[in-house]
Amino acid sequence: MYPDIILRLPEWLAGELQSPAQRFSTLEERMAFVIRLAERNIQEGTGGPFGAAVFTQETGELIAPGVNIVVASHCSLAHAEAVAIMLAQQICGTFDLSADFLPPLELVTSAQPCIQCYGNIWWSGLQRLIVGASKADVEALTGFQEGPVPENWVETLEHRPPLPPIRVIQNVLREEACAVLRAYAENGGLVYNPDVM
Amino acid sequence: MYPDIILRLPEWLAGELQSPAQRFSTLEERMAFVIRLAERNIQEGTGGPFGAAVFTQETGELIAPGVNIVVASHCSLAHAEAVAIMLAQQICGTFDLSADFLPPLELVTSAQPCIQCYGNIWWSGLQRLIVGASKADVEALTGFQEGPVPENWVETLEHRPPLPPIRVIQNVLREEACAVLRAYAENGGLVYNPDVM
Repeated sequence: MYPDIILRLPEWLAGELQSPAQRFSTLEERMAFVIRLAERNIQEGTGGPFGAAVFTQETGELIAPGVNIVVASHCSLAHAEAVAIMLAQQICGTFDLSADFLPPLELVTSAQPCIQCYGNIWWSGLQRLIVGASKADVEALTGFQEGPVPENWVETLEHRPPLPPIRVIQNVLREEACAVLRAYAENGGLVYNPDVM
Repeated sequence: MYPDIILRLPEWLAGELQSPAQRFSTLEERMAFVIRLAERNIQEGTGGPFGAAVFTQETGELIAPGVNIVVASHCSLAHAEAVAIMLAQQICGTFDLSADFLPPLELVTSAQPCIQCYGNIWWSGLQRLIVGASKADVEALTGFQEGPVPENWVETLEHRPPLPPIRVIQNVLREEACAVLRAYAENGGLVYNPDVM
Protein backbone atom coordinates (compact mmCIF):
# COMPACT_ATOMS: atom_id res chain seq x y z
CA MET A 1 0.00 0.00 0.00
CA TYR A 2 2.97 2.30 0.63
CA PRO A 3 6.23 2.41 -1.30
CA ASP A 4 9.58 1.45 0.18
CA ILE A 5 11.82 4.29 1.27
CA ILE A 6 14.89 4.07 -0.95
CA LEU A 7 18.09 6.10 -0.68
CA ARG A 8 20.75 5.68 -3.35
CA LEU A 9 24.27 7.04 -3.56
CA PRO A 10 25.08 9.06 -6.70
CA GLU A 11 26.51 6.97 -9.54
CA TRP A 12 29.74 9.00 -9.73
CA LEU A 13 30.69 7.75 -6.25
CA ALA A 14 31.87 4.39 -7.56
CA GLY A 15 34.57 6.24 -9.49
CA GLU A 16 36.04 7.60 -6.26
CA LEU A 17 36.59 4.14 -4.83
CA GLN A 18 39.68 2.12 -5.61
CA SER A 19 38.89 -1.21 -3.99
CA PRO A 20 36.12 -2.74 -1.89
CA ALA A 21 38.06 -2.47 1.37
CA GLN A 22 40.13 0.63 0.70
CA ARG A 23 42.28 1.78 3.64
CA PHE A 24 43.10 5.31 4.73
CA SER A 25 45.87 5.25 7.33
CA THR A 26 45.72 8.74 8.82
CA LEU A 27 42.85 10.95 9.92
CA GLU A 28 43.97 13.47 7.32
CA GLU A 29 43.66 10.89 4.55
CA ARG A 30 40.19 9.95 5.73
CA MET A 31 39.15 13.60 5.90
CA ALA A 32 40.64 14.36 2.48
CA PHE A 33 38.49 11.53 1.08
CA VAL A 34 35.22 12.89 2.50
CA ILE A 35 36.10 16.45 1.44
CA ARG A 36 36.68 15.07 -2.04
CA LEU A 37 33.19 13.51 -1.91
CA ALA A 38 31.73 16.88 -0.91
CA GLU A 39 33.54 18.52 -3.80
CA ARG A 40 32.36 15.95 -6.34
CA ASN A 41 28.82 16.26 -4.99
CA ILE A 42 28.90 19.95 -5.91
CA GLN A 43 30.56 19.41 -9.28
CA GLU A 44 28.10 16.72 -10.26
CA GLY A 45 25.11 18.68 -8.97
CA THR A 46 23.94 15.78 -6.84
CA GLY A 47 23.55 17.62 -3.53
CA GLY A 48 24.89 19.94 -0.87
CA PRO A 49 28.59 20.46 -0.07
CA PHE A 50 28.92 17.77 2.55
CA GLY A 51 30.68 14.41 2.63
CA ALA A 52 31.11 11.78 5.32
CA ALA A 53 32.18 8.17 5.74
CA VAL A 54 32.32 5.40 8.30
CA PHE A 55 35.76 3.85 8.80
CA THR A 56 37.28 1.28 11.11
CA GLN A 57 38.97 3.37 13.73
CA GLU A 58 42.22 1.40 14.01
CA THR A 59 42.93 0.49 10.41
CA GLY A 60 41.05 3.14 8.44
CA GLU A 61 39.16 0.69 6.30
CA LEU A 62 36.30 2.37 4.47
CA ILE A 63 32.99 0.79 5.48
CA ALA A 64 30.51 3.21 3.91
CA PRO A 65 30.67 6.62 2.25
CA GLY A 66 27.92 9.23 2.26
CA VAL A 67 27.09 12.53 0.62
CA ASN A 68 24.20 14.91 1.03
CA ILE A 69 21.35 13.74 -1.21
CA VAL A 70 18.48 15.65 0.43
CA VAL A 71 17.04 17.30 -2.67
CA ALA A 72 17.54 14.48 -5.17
CA SER A 73 16.21 11.76 -2.88
CA HIS A 74 13.27 13.79 -1.51
CA CYS A 75 14.48 13.20 2.02
CA SER A 76 15.37 15.86 4.58
CA LEU A 77 17.11 13.17 6.63
CA ALA A 78 19.60 12.36 3.88
CA HIS A 79 22.52 14.41 5.13
CA ALA A 80 25.97 13.01 4.39
CA GLU A 81 26.44 11.69 7.93
CA ALA A 82 23.03 10.00 7.99
CA VAL A 83 23.59 8.34 4.62
CA ALA A 84 26.98 7.00 5.73
CA ILE A 85 25.53 5.71 9.01
CA MET A 86 22.51 4.04 7.41
CA LEU A 87 24.64 2.47 4.70
CA ALA A 88 27.23 1.22 7.22
CA GLN A 89 24.47 -0.34 9.33
CA GLN A 90 22.91 -1.99 6.30
CA ILE A 91 26.29 -3.37 5.20
CA CYS A 92 27.16 -4.58 8.72
CA GLY A 93 23.68 -6.07 9.15
CA THR A 94 22.93 -4.33 12.43
CA PHE A 95 21.42 -1.11 13.77
CA ASP A 96 24.27 -0.98 16.31
CA LEU A 97 27.71 -0.12 14.98
CA SER A 98 29.16 -1.00 18.39
CA ALA A 99 27.97 -4.61 18.09
CA ASP A 100 30.43 -7.14 19.51
CA PHE A 101 31.33 -8.63 16.13
CA LEU A 102 32.49 -5.26 14.75
CA PRO A 103 35.75 -3.38 15.34
CA PRO A 104 35.44 0.17 16.74
CA LEU A 105 33.98 2.38 14.03
CA GLU A 106 34.17 6.12 13.50
CA LEU A 107 32.43 8.74 11.42
CA VAL A 108 34.55 11.26 9.50
CA THR A 109 32.56 14.27 8.33
CA SER A 110 33.59 17.31 6.33
CA ALA A 111 31.51 19.58 8.58
CA GLN A 112 30.20 19.57 12.14
CA PRO A 113 26.96 17.60 12.42
CA CYS A 114 23.73 19.61 12.52
CA ILE A 115 21.08 18.94 15.15
CA GLN A 116 19.69 16.06 13.09
CA CYS A 117 23.04 14.32 12.55
CA TYR A 118 23.96 14.94 16.18
CA GLY A 119 20.92 12.82 17.08
CA ASN A 120 21.73 10.22 14.42
CA ILE A 121 25.23 9.80 15.85
CA TRP A 122 23.86 9.54 19.38
CA TRP A 123 22.07 6.23 18.65
CA SER A 124 24.41 4.86 15.95
CA GLY A 125 26.93 2.89 17.97
CA LEU A 126 29.81 4.89 16.47
CA GLN A 127 32.72 5.31 18.85
CA ARG A 128 34.52 8.32 17.43
CA LEU A 129 33.65 11.42 15.40
CA ILE A 130 36.17 13.33 13.26
CA VAL A 131 35.13 16.80 12.11
CA GLY A 132 36.50 19.21 9.48
CA ALA A 133 34.70 22.58 9.27
CA SER A 134 32.85 23.91 12.33
CA LYS A 135 29.19 24.89 12.77
CA ALA A 136 30.27 28.53 12.63
CA ASP A 137 32.14 27.87 9.37
CA VAL A 138 29.08 26.23 7.78
CA GLU A 139 26.70 28.96 8.82
CA ALA A 140 29.01 31.84 7.91
CA LEU A 141 30.26 30.45 4.60
CA THR A 142 27.11 28.88 3.14
CA GLY A 143 23.94 30.11 4.84
CA PHE A 144 23.02 26.52 5.72
CA GLN A 145 21.80 26.40 9.29
CA GLU A 146 22.87 23.75 11.78
CA GLY A 147 19.93 24.03 14.19
CA PRO A 148 19.98 24.00 18.00
CA VAL A 149 23.10 21.91 18.57
CA PRO A 150 24.00 22.26 22.27
CA GLU A 151 26.88 24.62 23.05
CA ASN A 152 28.60 21.79 24.94
CA TRP A 153 27.94 19.20 22.20
CA VAL A 154 31.43 17.68 22.41
CA GLU A 155 31.13 17.16 26.14
CA THR A 156 27.67 15.60 25.76
CA LEU A 157 29.02 13.06 23.27
CA GLU A 158 32.18 12.28 25.21
CA HIS A 159 30.47 11.81 28.55
CA ARG A 160 27.00 10.26 28.42
CA PRO A 161 26.59 7.47 30.95
CA PRO A 162 25.16 4.88 30.82
CA LEU A 163 25.85 5.08 27.09
CA PRO A 164 29.47 4.63 25.98
CA PRO A 165 31.42 7.81 25.10
CA ILE A 166 31.86 9.04 21.54
CA ARG A 167 35.23 10.73 21.29
CA VAL A 168 35.35 13.89 19.15
CA ILE A 169 38.32 15.24 17.18
CA GLN A 170 37.76 18.60 15.50
CA ASN A 171 39.51 20.84 12.95
CA VAL A 172 41.02 18.08 10.83
CA LEU A 173 41.83 19.72 7.44
CA ARG A 174 39.47 22.50 8.46
CA GLU A 175 40.75 24.93 5.84
CA GLU A 176 40.29 22.43 3.04
CA ALA A 177 36.80 21.65 4.29
CA CYS A 178 35.97 25.36 4.41
CA ALA A 179 37.23 25.83 0.86
CA VAL A 180 34.53 23.46 -0.42
CA LEU A 181 31.83 25.30 1.52
CA ARG A 182 33.06 28.59 0.12
CA ALA A 183 33.11 27.26 -3.45
CA TYR A 184 29.52 26.04 -3.11
CA ALA A 185 28.29 29.44 -1.94
CA GLU A 186 30.28 31.32 -4.57
CA ASN A 187 28.79 29.19 -7.31
CA GLY A 188 25.26 29.95 -6.11
CA GLY A 189 24.58 26.49 -4.69
CA LEU A 190 21.07 25.90 -3.38
CA VAL A 191 20.67 26.45 0.36
CA TYR A 192 17.65 24.31 1.05
CA ASN A 193 16.65 25.10 4.60
CA PRO A 194 12.87 24.60 4.69
CA ASP A 195 12.27 28.36 4.88
CA VAL A 196 13.88 29.21 1.59
CA MET A 197 11.98 26.99 -0.81
CA MET B 1 29.35 -0.79 -5.58
CA TYR B 2 27.16 -0.09 -2.55
CA PRO B 3 23.63 -1.31 -1.95
CA ASP B 4 20.63 1.01 -1.78
CA ILE B 5 19.35 1.88 1.66
CA ILE B 6 15.85 0.42 1.83
CA LEU B 7 13.31 0.87 4.61
CA ARG B 8 10.03 -1.04 4.42
CA LEU B 9 6.91 -0.82 6.55
CA PRO B 10 5.79 -4.11 8.14
CA GLU B 11 3.30 -6.06 6.03
CA TRP B 12 0.61 -6.04 8.73
CA LEU B 13 0.31 -2.26 8.38
CA ALA B 14 -1.81 -2.52 5.24
CA GLY B 15 -4.48 -4.22 7.33
CA GLU B 16 -4.79 -1.16 9.55
CA LEU B 17 -5.67 1.08 6.61
CA GLN B 18 -9.19 1.41 5.34
CA SER B 19 -8.72 3.53 2.23
CA PRO B 20 -5.87 5.31 0.43
CA ALA B 21 -6.85 8.76 1.73
CA GLN B 22 -8.34 7.85 5.07
CA ARG B 23 -9.40 10.83 7.20
CA PHE B 24 -9.22 11.27 10.95
CA SER B 25 -11.20 14.33 12.02
CA THR B 26 -9.98 14.94 15.56
CA LEU B 27 -6.54 14.92 17.16
CA GLU B 28 -7.74 12.12 19.40
CA GLU B 29 -8.67 9.97 16.38
CA ARG B 30 -5.25 10.61 14.83
CA MET B 31 -3.51 9.75 18.09
CA ALA B 32 -5.61 6.63 18.59
CA PHE B 33 -4.48 5.48 15.12
CA VAL B 34 -0.77 5.87 15.86
CA ILE B 35 -1.15 4.25 19.29
CA ARG B 36 -2.82 1.35 17.53
CA LEU B 37 0.18 1.12 15.20
CA ALA B 38 2.52 1.03 18.22
CA GLU B 39 0.40 -1.72 19.75
CA ARG B 40 0.37 -3.81 16.58
CA ASN B 41 4.12 -3.31 16.22
CA ILE B 42 4.56 -4.98 19.60
CA GLN B 43 2.06 -7.74 18.95
CA GLU B 44 3.59 -8.59 15.60
CA GLY B 45 7.14 -8.39 16.94
CA THR B 46 8.19 -5.96 14.24
CA GLY B 47 9.76 -3.28 16.45
CA GLY B 48 9.61 -0.98 19.44
CA PRO B 49 6.41 0.40 21.00
CA PHE B 50 6.21 3.56 18.95
CA GLY B 51 3.87 4.73 16.19
CA ALA B 52 3.59 7.98 14.25
CA ALA B 53 1.96 9.39 11.14
CA VAL B 54 1.92 12.49 8.96
CA PHE B 55 -1.55 13.99 8.42
CA THR B 56 -2.93 17.06 6.73
CA GLN B 57 -3.46 19.45 9.59
CA GLU B 58 -6.86 20.81 8.57
CA THR B 59 -8.62 17.72 7.27
CA GLY B 60 -6.79 14.88 8.99
CA GLU B 61 -6.01 13.00 5.82
CA LEU B 62 -3.42 10.30 6.42
CA ILE B 63 -0.37 10.95 4.25
CA ALA B 64 2.09 8.42 5.69
CA PRO B 65 2.23 6.10 8.71
CA GLY B 66 5.37 4.99 10.50
CA VAL B 67 6.40 2.52 13.18
CA ASN B 68 9.71 1.81 14.81
CA ILE B 69 11.62 -0.67 12.61
CA VAL B 70 15.13 -0.10 13.99
CA VAL B 71 16.06 -3.71 14.69
CA ALA B 72 14.40 -5.37 11.70
CA SER B 73 15.68 -2.87 9.17
CA HIS B 74 19.20 -2.60 10.61
CA CYS B 75 18.83 1.15 10.94
CA SER B 76 19.15 3.18 14.12
CA LEU B 77 17.46 6.09 12.35
CA ALA B 78 14.26 4.15 11.72
CA HIS B 79 12.23 5.47 14.61
CA ALA B 80 8.48 5.78 13.99
CA GLU B 81 8.65 9.54 13.45
CA ALA B 82 11.55 9.29 11.00
CA VAL B 83 9.85 6.54 8.99
CA ALA B 84 6.64 8.59 8.74
CA ILE B 85 8.57 11.72 7.70
CA MET B 86 10.69 9.93 5.09
CA LEU B 87 7.68 8.14 3.65
CA ALA B 88 5.61 11.34 3.54
CA GLN B 89 8.42 13.14 1.73
CA GLN B 90 8.82 10.30 -0.74
CA ILE B 91 5.07 10.24 -1.41
CA CYS B 92 4.87 14.03 -1.76
CA GLY B 93 7.98 14.08 -3.97
CA THR B 94 9.85 16.67 -1.93
CA PHE B 95 12.25 16.93 1.00
CA ASP B 96 10.23 19.91 2.24
CA LEU B 97 6.81 19.14 3.70
CA SER B 98 6.09 22.87 3.78
CA ALA B 99 6.43 23.15 -0.01
CA ASP B 100 3.94 25.56 -1.57
CA PHE B 101 1.95 22.85 -3.34
CA LEU B 102 1.19 21.02 -0.07
CA PRO B 103 -1.37 21.83 2.63
CA PRO B 104 -0.01 22.32 6.17
CA LEU B 105 1.15 18.94 7.46
CA GLU B 106 1.59 17.65 10.99
CA LEU B 107 3.24 14.72 12.71
CA VAL B 108 1.28 12.77 15.30
CA THR B 109 3.49 10.58 17.48
CA SER B 110 2.63 8.21 20.30
CA ALA B 111 5.62 9.44 22.33
CA GLN B 112 7.72 12.57 22.61
CA PRO B 113 10.47 12.62 19.96
CA CYS B 114 13.96 11.61 21.10
CA ILE B 115 16.99 13.73 20.27
CA GLN B 116 17.21 12.14 16.81
CA CYS B 117 13.56 12.68 15.89
CA TYR B 118 13.71 16.20 17.32
CA GLY B 119 16.38 16.92 14.70
CA ASN B 120 14.41 15.12 11.98
CA ILE B 121 11.38 17.26 12.69
CA TRP B 122 13.51 20.42 12.69
CA TRP B 123 14.33 20.09 8.95
CA SER B 124 11.18 18.29 7.80
CA GLY B 125 8.89 21.17 6.87
CA LEU B 126 6.21 19.87 9.24
CA GLN B 127 4.14 22.64 10.76
CA ARG B 128 2.67 20.97 13.83
CA LEU B 129 3.61 18.18 16.24
CA ILE B 130 1.08 16.23 18.31
CA VAL B 131 2.50 14.14 21.17
CA GLY B 132 1.05 11.38 23.37
CA ALA B 133 3.38 10.09 26.09
CA SER B 134 6.17 12.33 27.42
CA LYS B 135 9.93 11.78 27.53
CA ALA B 136 9.60 11.07 31.25
CA ASP B 137 6.89 8.48 30.52
CA VAL B 138 9.06 6.72 27.94
CA GLU B 139 12.13 6.62 30.13
CA ALA B 140 10.29 5.60 33.30
CA LEU B 141 8.01 2.99 31.72
CA THR B 142 10.32 1.31 29.20
CA GLY B 143 13.98 2.02 29.86
CA PHE B 144 14.35 3.46 26.36
CA GLN B 145 16.36 6.65 26.54
CA GLU B 146 15.43 9.82 24.69
CA GLY B 147 18.86 11.47 24.65
CA PRO B 148 19.77 15.13 25.28
CA VAL B 149 16.52 16.75 24.15
CA PRO B 150 16.66 20.38 25.35
CA GLU B 151 14.61 21.20 28.44
CA ASN B 152 12.87 23.95 26.48
CA TRP B 153 12.28 21.79 23.40
CA VAL B 154 8.73 23.04 22.84
CA GLU B 155 9.84 26.66 22.89
CA THR B 156 12.70 25.93 20.49
CA LEU B 157 10.29 24.39 17.97
CA GLU B 158 7.61 27.05 18.35
CA HIS B 159 9.98 30.01 18.05
CA ARG B 160 12.91 29.52 15.69
CA PRO B 161 13.36 32.48 13.35
CA PRO B 162 14.16 32.65 10.50
CA LEU B 163 12.62 29.18 10.22
CA PRO B 164 8.82 28.94 10.52
CA PRO B 165 7.41 27.79 13.87
CA ILE B 166 6.36 24.20 14.56
CA ARG B 167 3.44 24.28 16.97
CA VAL B 168 3.44 21.55 19.65
CA ILE B 169 0.41 19.98 21.33
CA GLN B 170 1.20 17.52 24.11
CA ASN B 171 -0.63 14.96 26.25
CA VAL B 172 -3.15 13.82 23.64
CA LEU B 173 -4.41 10.40 24.84
CA ARG B 174 -1.37 10.28 27.08
CA GLU B 175 -2.75 7.51 29.29
CA GLU B 176 -3.50 5.30 26.30
CA ALA B 177 -0.03 5.96 24.90
CA CYS B 178 1.53 5.07 28.25
CA ALA B 179 -0.45 1.85 28.42
CA VAL B 180 1.31 0.61 25.27
CA LEU B 181 4.72 1.51 26.68
CA ARG B 182 3.88 -0.30 29.90
CA ALA B 183 2.68 -3.39 28.02
CA TYR B 184 5.92 -3.52 26.04
CA ALA B 185 8.06 -3.42 29.17
CA GLU B 186 5.90 -5.93 31.03
CA ASN B 187 6.20 -8.38 28.15
CA GLY B 188 9.99 -8.13 28.19
CA GLY B 189 10.30 -6.12 24.97
CA LEU B 190 13.83 -5.46 23.76
CA VAL B 191 15.25 -2.10 24.83
CA TYR B 192 17.86 -1.59 22.16
CA ASN B 193 19.86 1.42 23.26
CA PRO B 194 23.34 0.86 21.83
CA ASP B 195 24.76 0.09 25.27
CA VAL B 196 22.59 -2.92 25.96
CA MET B 197 23.34 -5.13 22.96
